[in-house]
Amino acid sequence: MRVIFNEEMKAVSANLDRMAELVSKAMNDAGNALVNADLESAQTVIDKDADLDALEASTIDQCLTLLARQNPVATDLREVVATMRLAATFERMGDLTSHIAQITRRTWPESAIVQEARETIVAMIDFLHELSGRLTTMVANRDVKMAETIIAGDDALDKLHEEIFALVEGENWHGTRRQLIDIVLLSRFIERIGDHSVAVARQIVFIVSGFDPTKKPEPDKDTVIA
Amino acid sequence: MRVIFNEEMKAVSANLDRMAELVSKAMNDAGNALVNADLESAQTVIDKDADLDALEASTIDQCLTLLARQNPVATDLREVVATMRLAATFERMGDLTSHIAQITRRTWPESAIVQEARETIVAMIDFLHELSGRLTTMVANRDVKMAETIIAGDDALDKLHEEIFALVEGENWHGTRRQLIDIVLLSRFIERIGDHSVAVARQIVFIVSGFDPTKKPEPDKDTVIA
Repeated sequence: MRVIFNEEMKAVSANLDRMAELVSKAMNDAGNALVNADLESAQTVIDKDADLDALEASTIDQCLTLLARQNPVATDLREVVATMRLAATFERMGDLTSHIAQITRRTWPESAIVQEARETIVAMIDFLHELSGRLTTMVANRDVKMAETIIAGDDALDKLHEEIFALVEGENWHGTRRQLIDIVLLSRFIERIGDHSVAVARQIVFIVSGFDPTKKPEPDKDTVIA
Repeated sequence: MRVIFNEEMKAVSANLDRMAELVSKAMNDAGNALVNADLESAQTVIDKDADLDALEASTIDQCLTLLARQNPVATDLREVVATMRLAATFERMGDLTSHIAQITRRTWPESAIVQEARETIVAMIDFLHELSGRLTTMVANRDVKMAETIIAGDDALDKLHEEIFALVEGENWHGTRRQLIDIVLLSRFIERIGDHSVAVARQIVFIVSGFDPTKKPEPDKDTVIA
């Protein structure tokens, strides 16, 4: 039983690693498309989102089969259940990269980023680039240290998100209302990708250690600037 | 085995029904607090969100125990896995009601709804009220017909969300930038609650029929107005 479980789990993990790679690529591509007002890249991100949806569905099917046939317990059960949650989170992260790309596409050939917001948005995209590399490493190696780095790093992204709010309300803002909406939504989508990455990191800690860091009382990471 | 499974599943289902009730109440209270600029109600919604977080954690623990001890297959397995997904969705819906309440609290004693957006936002809140009643009925009775009603009804909410975008960009808008941001975010949070309700409805269909309506190719319900 145990051998069969390991074999089948390996296939599921490969699917999950693939999802992590696709999400990382979408994060990079959506960020680049936004910064460079690159229509073709934006369209690719939008089109590729269906791959993540399909992978989520097949990962969950595999997990259901595993649960039914192998009756995993303890660590194995934890891994299967966490895998299902991770697949759902990756699918949602894909949606958010697609949302970013949709804004890039709609404003094209104009950039969706007004000059006065450029520095902060570029800093957020740089953050996404770094995060995307960390994500794939963490998922592929079940790397708890990297998970802790991701969890600890999210505050920096939240600060940039707050900066955007201060900026669009401040005296230096000269954009149109539509540009304001786009900047706020872009910032929100990027910040949500950060939150989901933290959720992924917590699931990785849970898989490896059995300790669920979400149960540690701590401030709501997802508080809106409101 | 089967008798024990049914007993334990009954306890998990009771937890899930409780989550549905709490979410429905939060939807109603957050909506009323917003429309009436009621600080006390808003604060209650924010405080009560922790109950949903705790219920999600205990529901998932119960499901893990059930999976390990009872090795459910077929319909039973489907129900346990769907229950875990539903618990996660309800938790997220609670977050969104809390976000709405946070905006209400921040603008208090002023209303967060500028006059020109009032009609549309009130229509969205009315939609939430109706949806909240449907949700509890659907979850408590595993009511597939009600699920279909919820899935079919979501387009109306998306239309109201689009109306908000047209409104804040149009000539009749006279609000400040902060009011614009609040209206756009409020509209987005309400629309997301609608999307999550559709996800819940699909899981109910999946539990009852084994058919996963998410696999039916259809337009992305979560497309941003972008």
